[in-house]
Amino acid sequence: MNFSTTLHARWQQAQTLLCVGLDPDPARLPANVPATPEGVLEFCTRIVDATAEFACAFKPQVAAFAALRAEGALEALIAHIHRAHAGIAVVLDAKRGDIGNTARWYAEEAFGRFGADAVTVNPYMGGDTLAPWLEYRDKGVFVLCRTSNPGAGQLQDLALADGARLYEHVAQLAAREWNAHGNCGLVVGATRPDELARVREIVGAQMPLLVPGVGAQGGDLPATLAAGRTQTGGLLINASRAILYASSGADYAQAAHEAARALRDAMRA
Amino acid sequence: MNFSTTLHARWQQAQTLLCVGLDPDPARLPANVPATPEGVLEFCTRIVDATAEFACAFKPQVAAFAALRAEGALEALIAHIHRAHAGIAVVLDAKRGDIGNTARWYAEEAFGRFGADAVTVNPYMGGDTLAPWLEYRDKGVFVLCRTSNPGAGQLQDLALADGARLYEHVAQLAAREWNAHGNCGLVVGATRPDELARVREIVGAQMPLLVPGVGAQGGDLPATLAAGRTQTGGLLINASRAILYASSGADYAQAAHEAARALRDAMRA
Repeated sequence: MNFSTTLHARWQQAQTLLCVGLDPDPARLPANVPATPEGVLEFCTRIVDATAEFACAFKPQVAAFAALRAEGALEALIAHIHRAHAGIAVVLDAKRGDIGNTARWYAEEAFGRFGADAVTVNPYMGGDTLAPWLEYRDKGVFVLCRTSNPGAGQLQDLALADGARLYEHVAQLAAREWNAHGNCGLVVGATRPDELARVREIVGAQMPLLVPGVGAQGGDLPATLAAGRTQTGGLLINASRAILYASSGADYAQAAHEAARALRDAMRA
Repeated sequence: MNFSTTLHARWQQAQTLLCVGLDPDPARLPANVPATPEGVLEFCTRIVDATAEFACAFKPQVAAFAALRAEGALEALIAHIHRAHAGIAVVLDAKRGDIGNTARWYAEEAFGRFGADAVTVNPYMGGDTLAPWLEYRDKGVFVLCRTSNPGAGQLQDLALADGARLYEHVAQLAAREWNAHGNCGLVVGATRPDELARVREIVGAQMPLLVPGVGAQGGDLPATLAAGRTQTGGLLINASRAILYASSGADYAQAAHEAARALRDAMRA
Protein backbone atom coordinates (compact mmCIF):
# COMPACT_ATOMS: atom_id res chain seq x y z
CA MET A 1 0.00 0.00 0.00
CA ASN A 2 1.24 3.48 -0.89
CA PHE A 3 -0.14 5.94 1.63
CA SER A 4 -0.59 8.90 -0.70
CA THR A 5 -2.25 6.84 -3.43
CA THR A 6 -4.52 5.13 -0.92
CA LEU A 7 -5.54 8.41 0.69
CA HIS A 8 -6.33 10.10 -2.63
CA ALA A 9 -8.36 7.09 -3.76
CA ARG A 10 -10.32 7.08 -0.53
CA TRP A 11 -11.01 10.84 -0.66
CA GLN A 12 -12.33 10.35 -4.20
CA GLN A 13 -14.40 7.21 -3.63
CA ALA A 14 -15.89 7.89 -0.21
CA GLN A 15 -16.07 11.69 -0.44
CA THR A 16 -15.04 12.15 3.16
CA LEU A 17 -12.29 14.05 4.97
CA LEU A 18 -13.06 12.51 8.37
CA CYS A 19 -10.19 10.89 10.24
CA VAL A 20 -11.47 8.88 13.21
CA GLY A 21 -9.12 9.21 16.17
CA LEU A 22 -8.78 6.12 18.36
CA ASP A 23 -7.74 7.48 21.77
CA PRO A 24 -9.40 5.09 24.23
CA ASP A 25 -9.39 6.98 27.54
CA PRO A 26 -9.59 4.44 30.40
CA ALA A 27 -11.66 6.95 32.39
CA ARG A 28 -14.27 7.40 29.66
CA LEU A 29 -14.91 3.90 28.37
CA PRO A 30 -18.57 2.82 28.32
CA ALA A 31 -19.72 1.21 31.56
CA ASN A 32 -19.64 -2.32 30.15
CA VAL A 33 -16.09 -2.04 28.74
CA PRO A 34 -13.22 -2.88 31.13
CA ALA A 35 -10.05 -0.75 31.04
CA THR A 36 -7.92 -3.71 29.99
CA PRO A 37 -6.07 -4.46 26.76
CA GLU A 38 -8.91 -6.81 25.78
CA GLY A 39 -11.59 -4.26 26.66
CA VAL A 40 -9.88 -1.48 24.72
CA LEU A 41 -9.38 -3.74 21.70
CA GLU A 42 -13.05 -4.68 21.63
CA PHE A 43 -14.13 -1.05 22.12
CA CYS A 44 -11.90 0.27 19.34
CA THR A 45 -12.75 -2.56 16.96
CA ARG A 46 -16.45 -1.83 17.32
CA ILE A 47 -15.84 1.91 16.83
CA VAL A 48 -13.81 1.15 13.69
CA ASP A 49 -16.48 -1.11 12.22
CA ALA A 50 -19.23 1.40 13.04
CA THR A 51 -17.47 4.41 11.51
CA ALA A 52 -15.39 3.01 8.63
CA GLU A 53 -17.84 3.97 5.90
CA PHE A 54 -17.48 7.65 6.86
CA ALA A 55 -13.69 7.64 7.39
CA CYS A 56 -10.80 8.54 5.10
CA ALA A 57 -8.35 7.32 7.78
CA PHE A 58 -8.06 6.02 11.33
CA LYS A 59 -5.64 7.57 13.80
CA PRO A 60 -4.80 5.44 16.86
CA GLN A 61 -3.00 7.26 19.69
CA VAL A 62 -0.05 5.16 20.91
CA ALA A 63 -0.04 6.71 24.39
CA ALA A 64 -3.52 5.46 25.24
CA PHE A 65 -2.41 1.90 24.55
CA ALA A 66 1.04 2.23 26.12
CA ALA A 67 -0.36 3.41 29.45
CA LEU A 68 -2.38 0.17 29.62
CA ARG A 69 0.45 -2.18 28.49
CA ALA A 70 -1.81 -2.72 25.45
CA GLU A 71 0.70 -2.71 22.57
CA GLY A 72 -0.60 -6.14 21.58
CA ALA A 73 -4.12 -4.73 21.35
CA LEU A 74 -2.83 -1.89 19.15
CA GLU A 75 -1.15 -4.37 16.81
CA ALA A 76 -4.35 -6.42 16.62
CA LEU A 77 -6.49 -3.33 16.05
CA ILE A 78 -4.40 -2.10 13.12
CA ALA A 79 -4.30 -5.60 11.63
CA HIS A 80 -8.11 -5.65 11.88
CA ILE A 81 -8.39 -2.31 10.05
CA HIS A 82 -6.17 -3.56 7.22
CA ARG A 83 -8.09 -6.83 6.96
CA ALA A 84 -11.67 -5.60 7.34
CA HIS A 85 -11.35 -2.12 5.84
CA ALA A 86 -8.72 -2.29 3.11
CA GLY A 87 -8.27 1.08 1.46
CA ILE A 88 -8.55 3.08 4.69
CA ALA A 89 -5.12 4.16 5.89
CA VAL A 90 -3.90 4.05 9.49
CA VAL A 91 -2.03 7.10 10.82
CA LEU A 92 -0.20 6.18 14.02
CA ASP A 93 -0.25 9.20 16.31
CA ALA A 94 3.15 8.80 17.97
CA LYS A 95 4.77 12.26 17.73
CA ARG A 96 8.21 10.66 17.92
CA GLY A 97 11.43 12.60 17.44
CA ASP A 98 14.98 11.40 18.09
CA ILE A 99 18.44 11.15 16.51
CA GLY A 100 19.06 8.98 13.45
CA ASN A 101 19.75 5.55 14.97
CA THR A 102 16.91 5.90 17.40
CA ALA A 103 14.51 7.27 14.80
CA ARG A 104 15.13 4.11 12.80
CA TRP A 105 14.02 2.00 15.78
CA TYR A 106 10.90 4.13 16.20
CA ALA A 107 10.17 3.77 12.49
CA GLU A 108 10.54 0.01 12.85
CA GLU A 109 8.09 0.17 15.77
CA ALA A 110 5.53 2.22 13.81
CA PHE A 111 5.76 0.70 10.34
CA GLY A 112 7.10 -2.79 11.09
CA ARG A 113 5.66 -3.82 14.42
CA PHE A 114 2.40 -1.85 14.30
CA GLY A 115 1.91 -1.89 10.53
CA ALA A 116 0.92 1.78 10.29
CA ASP A 117 0.63 3.50 6.90
CA ALA A 118 1.59 6.92 8.24
CA VAL A 119 2.84 8.49 11.45
CA THR A 120 3.08 11.81 13.27
CA VAL A 121 6.58 13.11 14.14
CA ASN A 122 8.11 16.11 15.91
CA PRO A 123 10.47 18.51 14.04
CA TYR A 124 12.30 20.13 17.01
CA MET A 125 15.48 18.09 16.51
CA GLY A 126 15.79 18.99 12.81
CA GLY A 127 15.51 17.41 9.38
CA ASP A 128 18.20 14.77 9.89
CA THR A 129 15.96 13.22 12.56
CA LEU A 130 13.00 13.14 10.13
CA ALA A 131 15.01 11.56 7.32
CA PRO A 132 14.81 7.97 8.63
CA TRP A 133 11.02 8.30 8.51
CA LEU A 134 10.85 9.99 5.13
CA GLU A 135 13.00 7.26 3.59
CA TYR A 136 9.92 5.03 3.81
CA ARG A 137 8.60 6.32 0.49
CA ASP A 138 5.34 4.40 0.62
CA LYS A 139 4.45 5.76 4.05
CA GLY A 140 3.10 9.14 5.11
CA VAL A 141 5.00 11.34 7.60
CA PHE A 142 2.99 14.11 9.24
CA VAL A 143 5.30 16.64 10.89
CA LEU A 144 3.94 18.76 13.76
CA CYS A 145 3.61 22.33 12.52
CA ARG A 146 0.91 24.36 14.36
CA THR A 147 -0.85 22.23 16.95
CA SER A 148 -4.29 22.71 18.52
CA ASN A 149 -3.45 22.84 22.24
CA PRO A 150 -3.92 26.15 24.10
CA GLY A 151 -0.19 26.69 24.67
CA ALA A 152 0.93 25.67 21.17
CA GLY A 153 1.99 29.19 20.31
CA GLN A 154 4.61 29.43 23.05
CA LEU A 155 7.19 28.11 20.61
CA GLN A 156 5.32 27.69 17.34
CA ASP A 157 4.22 31.34 17.06
CA LEU A 158 7.60 32.83 17.92
CA ALA A 159 8.64 35.52 15.46
CA LEU A 160 11.94 34.78 13.76
CA ALA A 161 14.49 37.37 12.75
CA ASP A 162 13.41 37.05 9.11
CA GLY A 163 9.80 37.90 10.01
CA ALA A 164 8.30 34.43 9.71
CA ARG A 165 6.72 32.61 12.65
CA LEU A 166 8.36 29.34 13.69
CA TYR A 167 5.41 27.26 12.42
CA GLU A 168 5.64 29.04 9.05
CA HIS A 169 9.34 28.18 8.91
CA VAL A 170 8.50 24.52 9.60
CA ALA A 171 5.95 24.61 6.77
CA GLN A 172 8.59 26.13 4.47
CA LEU A 173 11.09 23.41 5.37
CA ALA A 174 8.46 20.74 4.74
CA ALA A 175 7.66 22.17 1.32
CA ARG A 176 11.27 22.83 0.26
CA GLU A 177 13.29 20.03 1.85
CA TRP A 178 11.40 17.32 3.66
CA ASN A 179 8.92 16.45 0.89
CA ALA A 180 11.46 15.25 -1.68
CA HIS A 181 9.64 11.89 -1.94
CA GLY A 182 6.13 13.40 -1.88
CA ASN A 183 5.31 11.65 1.38
CA CYS A 184 5.47 14.53 3.88
CA GLY A 185 2.39 16.05 5.45
CA LEU A 186 1.85 18.49 8.31
CA VAL A 187 -0.21 18.58 11.49
CA VAL A 188 -2.10 21.88 11.73
CA GLY A 189 -4.84 22.37 14.31
CA ALA A 190 -8.37 23.52 13.48
CA THR A 191 -8.35 25.99 16.36
CA ARG A 192 -6.76 28.77 14.27
CA PRO A 193 -8.13 28.68 10.69
CA ASP A 194 -6.08 31.74 9.72
CA GLU A 195 -2.91 29.81 10.48
CA LEU A 196 -4.20 26.77 8.60
CA ALA A 197 -4.79 28.99 5.58
CA ARG A 198 -1.27 30.38 5.88
CA VAL A 199 0.20 26.85 5.96
CA ARG A 200 -1.83 25.86 2.91
CA GLU A 201 -0.54 28.93 1.12
CA ILE A 202 3.06 27.96 1.94
CA VAL A 203 2.90 24.25 1.06
CA GLY A 204 0.58 24.37 -1.95
CA ALA A 205 -2.31 22.08 -2.82
CA GLN A 206 -0.52 18.73 -2.91
CA MET A 207 0.50 18.31 0.73
CA PRO A 208 -2.00 16.57 3.02
CA LEU A 209 -2.73 18.33 6.31
CA LEU A 210 -3.81 16.37 9.37
CA VAL A 211 -6.15 18.62 11.33
CA PRO A 212 -7.03 17.86 14.95
CA GLY A 213 -9.13 20.18 17.08
CA VAL A 214 -12.59 19.98 15.49
CA GLY A 215 -15.21 18.78 17.96
CA ALA A 216 -14.16 18.58 21.61
CA GLN A 217 -11.37 21.12 21.16
CA GLY A 218 -13.69 23.73 19.64
CA GLY A 219 -12.36 24.17 16.11
CA ASP A 220 -14.67 25.71 13.52
CA LEU A 221 -15.45 23.18 10.76
CA PRO A 222 -16.61 25.52 7.95
CA ALA A 223 -13.65 27.84 8.56
CA THR A 224 -11.30 24.83 8.59
CA LEU A 225 -12.65 23.61 5.26
CA ALA A 226 -12.39 27.06 3.72
CA ALA A 227 -8.82 27.40 4.93
CA GLY A 228 -7.34 24.04 4.00
CA ARG A 229 -9.45 21.98 1.60
CA THR A 230 -8.21 21.38 -1.93
CA GLN A 231 -9.82 20.05 -5.12
CA THR A 232 -8.74 16.49 -4.36
CA GLY A 233 -9.35 16.62 -0.60
CA GLY A 234 -6.22 17.87 1.08
CA LEU A 235 -7.35 17.41 4.68
CA LEU A 236 -7.65 14.64 7.24
CA ILE A 237 -9.94 16.28 9.78
CA ASN A 238 -9.63 14.32 12.98
CA ALA A 239 -12.35 13.78 15.55
CA SER A 240 -11.75 11.50 18.51
CA ARG A 241 -13.77 12.23 21.65
CA ALA A 242 -16.85 13.47 19.76
CA ILE A 243 -17.13 10.02 18.17
CA LEU A 244 -15.69 7.63 20.78
CA TYR A 245 -17.81 9.00 23.61
CA ALA A 246 -20.97 9.93 21.70
CA SER A 247 -22.69 7.59 24.16
CA SER A 248 -21.43 6.19 27.44
CA GLY A 249 -23.93 3.33 27.26
CA ALA A 250 -24.01 -0.05 25.56
CA ASP A 251 -25.12 1.70 22.34
CA TYR A 252 -21.75 3.43 21.97
CA ALA A 253 -21.02 1.90 18.55
CA GLN A 254 -24.34 3.03 17.10
CA ALA A 255 -23.86 6.48 18.62
CA ALA A 256 -20.36 6.64 17.13
CA HIS A 257 -21.83 5.67 13.75
CA GLU A 258 -24.32 8.54 13.93
CA ALA A 259 -21.70 11.03 15.13
CA ALA A 260 -19.28 10.05 12.37
CA ARG A 261 -22.01 10.31 9.74
CA ALA A 262 -23.01 13.76 11.01
CA LEU A 263 -19.40 14.94 10.82
CA ARG A 264 -18.93 13.46 7.36
CA ASP A 265 -22.14 15.17 6.21
CA ALA A 266 -21.07 18.48 7.74
CA MET A 267 -17.77 18.23 5.86
CA ARG A 268 -19.62 17.66 2.60
CA ALA A 269 -22.08 20.51 3.10
CA MET B 1 12.53 8.54 45.83
CA ASN B 2 12.89 12.21 44.98
CA PHE B 3 14.88 12.50 41.77
CA SER B 4 16.70 15.72 42.57
CA THR B 5 17.67 14.63 46.09
CA THR B 6 18.78 11.23 44.85
CA LEU B 7 20.88 12.72 42.06
CA HIS B 8 22.61 15.22 44.34
CA ALA B 9 23.37 12.51 46.89
CA ARG B 10 24.82 10.27 44.20
CA TRP B 11 26.97 13.05 42.72
CA GLN B 12 28.32 13.71 46.21
CA GLN B 13 28.87 10.12 47.31
CA ALA B 14 30.16 8.53 44.11
CA GLN B 15 31.89 11.59 42.64
CA THR B 16 30.76 10.76 39.13
CA LEU B 17 28.85 12.59 36.40
CA LEU B 18 28.60 9.54 34.15
CA CYS B 19 25.13 8.57 32.89
CA VAL B 20 25.20 5.13 31.29
CA GLY B 21 22.90 5.03 28.27
CA LEU B 22 21.13 1.72 27.66
CA ASP B 23 20.37 1.71 23.93
CA PRO B 24 20.70 -1.96 22.95
CA ASP B 25 21.11 -1.93 19.17
CA PRO B 26 19.99 -5.31 17.78
CA ALA B 27 22.67 -5.02 15.10
CA ARG B 28 25.52 -4.49 17.59
CA LEU B 29 24.81 -6.98 20.36
CA PRO B 30 27.70 -9.30 21.24
CA ALA B 31 27.76 -12.49 19.20
CA ASN B 32 26.42 -14.66 22.00
CA VAL B 33 23.44 -12.37 22.79
CA PRO B 34 20.27 -12.95 20.75
CA ALA B 35 18.24 -9.91 19.56
CA THR B 36 15.21 -10.96 21.60
CA PRO B 37 13.57 -9.37 24.64
CA GLU B 38 15.31 -11.97 26.83
CA GLY B 39 18.67 -11.40 25.19
CA VAL B 40 18.43 -7.63 25.50
CA LEU B 41 17.38 -7.89 29.14
CA GLU B 42 20.34 -10.08 30.00
CA PHE B 43 22.73 -7.84 28.05
CA CYS B 44 21.52 -4.65 29.71
CA THR B 45 21.39 -6.20 33.18
CA ARG B 46 25.01 -7.27 32.90
CA ILE B 47 25.99 -3.81 31.60
CA VAL B 48 24.18 -2.20 34.53
CA ASP B 49 25.83 -4.43 37.11
CA ALA B 50 29.25 -3.90 35.55
CA THR B 51 29.02 -0.10 35.38
CA ALA B 52 26.86 0.90 38.37
CA GLU B 53 29.75 1.90 40.61
CA PHE B 54 30.81 4.55 38.08
CA ALA B 55 27.30 5.83 37.24
CA CYS B 56 25.26 8.73 38.59
CA ALA B 57 22.29 7.55 36.51
CA PHE B 58 21.14 5.06 33.88
CA LYS B 59 19.31 6.17 30.76
CA PRO B 60 17.40 3.45 28.90
CA GLN B 61 16.20 4.37 25.39
CA VAL B 62 12.55 3.33 24.94
CA ALA B 63 12.82 3.03 21.16
CA ALA B 64 15.39 0.25 21.31
CA PHE B 65 13.02 -1.85 23.40
CA ALA B 66 9.85 -0.88 21.51
CA ALA B 67 11.27 -1.98 18.16
CA LEU B 68 11.78 -5.47 19.65
CA ARG B 69 8.39 -5.71 21.42
CA ALA B 70 10.51 -5.69 24.60
CA GLU B 71 8.53 -3.39 26.90
CA GLY B 72 8.42 -6.20 29.44
CA ALA B 73 12.21 -6.40 29.37
CA LEU B 74 12.41 -2.65 29.93
CA GLU B 75 10.11 -2.90 32.95
CA ALA B 76 12.21 -5.73 34.35
CA LEU B 77 15.48 -3.88 33.70
CA ILE B 78 14.36 -0.76 35.55
CA ALA B 79 13.01 -2.85 38.43
CA HIS B 80 16.42 -4.53 38.61
CA ILE B 81 18.21 -1.17 38.78
CA HIS B 82 15.97 0.00 41.62
CA ARG B 83 16.43 -3.28 43.50
CA ALA B 84 20.13 -3.91 42.98
CA HIS B 85 21.40 -0.33 42.74
CA ALA B 86 19.20 1.80 44.98
CA GLY B 87 20.30 5.41 44.89
CA ILE B 88 21.06 5.46 41.17
CA ALA B 89 18.26 7.17 39.28
CA VAL B 90 16.74 5.99 35.99
CA VAL B 91 16.14 8.57 33.26
CA LEU B 92 13.78 7.15 30.64
CA ASP B 93 14.81 8.54 27.25
CA ALA B 94 11.41 8.84 25.62
CA LYS B 95 11.34 12.37 24.14
CA ARG B 96 7.56 12.38 24.32
CA GLY B 97 5.47 15.43 23.58
CA ASP B 98 1.69 15.64 23.19
CA ILE B 99 -1.41 17.54 24.37
CA GLY B 100 -2.52 17.41 28.00
CA ASN B 101 -4.71 14.28 28.08
CA THR B 102 -2.22 12.34 26.05
CA ALA B 103 0.78 13.62 28.00
CA ARG B 104 -0.86 12.22 31.13
CA TRP B 105 -1.00 8.77 29.51
CA TYR B 106 2.64 9.02 28.51
CA ALA B 107 3.55 10.08 32.05
CA GLU B 108 1.65 7.08 33.36
CA GLU B 109 3.64 4.92 30.94
CA ALA B 110 7.00 6.39 32.03
CA PHE B 111 6.53 6.82 35.77
CA GLY B 112 3.82 4.23 36.52
CA ARG B 113 4.39 1.36 34.16
CA PHE B 114 8.15 1.65 33.71
CA GLY B 115 8.96 3.11 37.13
CA ALA B 116 11.36 5.75 35.81
CA ASP B 117 12.65 8.52 38.10
CA ALA B 118 13.03 11.03 35.27
CA VAL B 119 12.21 11.37 31.60
CA THR B 120 13.15 13.31 28.47
CA VAL B 121 10.41 15.37 26.77
CA ASN B 122 10.05 17.61 23.71
CA PRO B 123 9.06 21.29 24.07
CA TYR B 124 7.76 22.02 20.54
CA MET B 125 4.08 21.90 21.57
CA GLY B 126 4.53 24.38 24.43
CA GLY B 127 4.51 24.53 28.21
CA ASP B 128 0.95 23.30 28.66
CA THR B 129 2.06 19.96 27.20
CA LEU B 130 4.98 19.79 29.67
CA ALA B 131 2.80 20.59 32.71
CA PRO B 132 1.39 17.05 33.13
CA TRP B 133 4.98 15.83 33.47
CA LEU B 134 6.17 18.62 35.75
CA GLU B 135 3.26 17.99 38.13
CA TYR B 136 5.14 14.87 39.24
CA ARG B 137 7.19 16.84 41.74
CA ASP B 138 9.37 13.91 42.80
CA LYS B 139 10.37 13.13 39.23
CA GLY B 140 12.85 14.82 36.91
CA VAL B 141 11.77 16.22 33.54
CA PHE B 142 14.57 16.90 31.03
CA VAL B 143 13.32 19.13 28.21
CA LEU B 144 15.12 18.99 24.86
CA CYS B 145 16.98 22.27 24.41
CA ARG B 146 20.07 21.98 22.14
CA THR B 147 20.56 18.41 20.95
CA SER B 148 23.71 16.71 19.70
CA ASN B 149 22.64 15.50 16.25
CA PRO B 150 24.22 17.12 13.16
CA GLY B 151 20.98 18.80 12.04
CA ALA B 152 19.91 20.01 15.49
CA GLY B 153 20.45 23.64 14.59
CA GLN B 154 17.91 23.66 11.78
CA LEU B 155 15.26 24.74 14.28
CA GLN B 156 17.11 25.10 17.58
CA ASP B 157 19.62 27.69 16.31
CA LEU B 158 17.06 29.86 14.53
CA ALA B 159 17.46 33.53 15.42
CA LEU B 160 14.32 35.02 16.93
CA ALA B 161 13.15 38.58 16.42
CA ASP B 162 14.38 39.51 19.92
CA GLY B 163 17.91 38.33 19.08
CA ALA B 164 17.89 35.07 21.04
CA ARG B 165 18.31 31.68 19.41
CA LEU B 166 15.40 29.26 19.77
CA TYR B 167 17.36 26.98 22.13
CA GLU B 168 18.20 30.00 24.31
CA HIS B 169 14.52 30.85 24.45
CA VAL B 170 13.72 27.29 25.55
CA ALA B 171 16.37 27.59 28.28
CA GLN B 172 14.82 30.89 29.40
CA LEU B 173 11.34 29.33 29.54
CA ALA B 174 12.71 26.42 31.56
CA ALA B 175 14.37 28.75 34.05
CA ARG B 176 11.47 31.23 34.32
CA GLU B 177 8.34 29.09 33.96
CA TRP B 178 8.79 25.36 33.76
CA ASN B 179 10.96 24.90 36.85
CA ALA B 180 8.41 26.10 39.40
CA HIS B 181 8.74 22.81 41.31
CA GLY B 182 12.53 22.57 40.95
CA ASN B 183 12.25 19.38 38.90
CA CYS B 184 13.00 20.62 35.38
CA GLY B 185 16.27 19.89 33.61
CA LEU B 186 17.45 20.37 30.04
CA VAL B 187 19.06 18.19 27.37
CA VAL B 188 22.07 19.95 25.88
CA GLY B 189 24.51 18.08 23.65
CA ALA B 190 28.25 17.95 24.22
CA THR B 191 28.97 18.66 20.57
CA ARG B 192 28.87 22.45 21.04
CA PRO B 193 30.42 23.42 24.40
CA ASP B 194 29.88 27.13 23.71
CA GLU B 195 26.14 26.52 23.57
CA LEU B 196 26.28 24.40 26.71
CA ALA B 197 28.02 27.30 28.47
CA ARG B 198 25.35 29.69 27.22
CA VAL B 199 22.59 27.42 28.57
CA ARG B 200 24.34 27.15 31.94
CA GLU B 201 24.58 30.93 32.03
CA ILE B 202 20.83 31.26 31.38
CA VAL B 203 19.57 28.62 33.83
CA GLY B 204 22.03 29.11 36.70
CA ALA B 205 23.81 26.50 38.78
CA GLN B 206 20.83 24.59 40.16
CA MET B 207 19.37 23.05 37.02
CA PRO B 208 20.73 19.63 35.99
CA LEU B 209 21.76 19.27 32.36
CA LEU B 210 21.65 15.92 30.61
CA VAL B 211 24.48 15.90 28.10
CA PRO B 212 24.63 13.31 25.31
CA GLY B 213 27.24 13.38 22.59
CA VAL B 214 30.46 12.53 24.44
CA GLY B 215 32.11 9.43 23.02
CA ALA B 216 30.71 8.06 19.77
CA GLN B 217 29.25 11.43 18.77
CA GLY B 218 32.56 13.23 19.19
CA GLY B 219 31.88 15.70 22.00
CA ASP B 220 34.87 17.15 23.84
CA LEU B 221 34.82 16.05 27.50
CA PRO B 222 37.11 18.68 29.07
CA ALA B 223 35.30 21.46 27.20
CA THR B 224 31.96 20.00 28.29
CA LEU B 225 33.02 19.95 31.93
CA ALA B 226 34.32 23.49 31.74
CA ALA B 227 31.11 24.68 30.15
CA GLY B 228 28.51 23.00 32.34
CA ARG B 229 29.82 21.56 35.59
CA THR B 230 28.81 23.18 38.87
CA GLN B 231 30.05 22.90 42.46
CA THR B 232 27.55 20.13 43.27
CA GLY B 233 27.77 18.31 39.94
CA GLY B 234 25.28 19.82 37.56
CA LEU B 235 25.75 17.40 34.67
CA LEU B 236 24.66 13.92 33.66
CA ILE B 237 27.15 13.18 30.90
CA ASN B 238 25.76 10.32 28.89
CA ALA B 239 27.74 7.66 27.11
CA SER B 240 25.99 4.76 25.43
CA ARG B 241 27.81 3.14 22.52
CA ALA B 242 31.30 3.72 23.95
CA ILE B 243 30.32 1.56 26.94
CA LEU B 244 27.79 -0.92 25.52
CA TYR B 245 29.98 -1.93 22.61
CA ALA B 246 33.41 -1.62 24.21
CA SER B 247 33.79 -5.27 23.23
CA SER B 248 31.77 -7.36 20.80
CA GLY B 249 32.88 -10.55 22.47
CA ALA B 250 31.78 -12.53 25.50
CA ASP B 251 33.80 -10.16 27.70
CA TYR B 252 31.47 -7.24 26.94
CA ALA B 253 30.55 -6.66 30.59
CA GLN B 254 34.17 -6.46 31.71
CA ALA B 255 34.95 -4.18 28.77
CA ALA B 256 31.98 -1.97 29.69
CA HIS B 257 33.27 -1.84 33.26
CA GLU B 258 36.67 -0.63 32.07
CA ALA B 259 35.16 1.88 29.63
CA ALA B 260 32.86 3.30 32.30
CA ARG B 261 35.70 3.57 34.79
CA ALA B 262 37.86 5.36 32.23
CA LEU B 263 35.08 7.83 31.49
CA ARG B 264 34.42 8.40 35.21
CA ASP B 265 38.14 8.97 35.78
CA ALA B 266 38.34 11.36 32.83
CA MET B 267 35.43 13.32 34.29
CA ARG B 268 37.22 13.58 37.65
CA ALA B 269 40.56 14.63 36.17
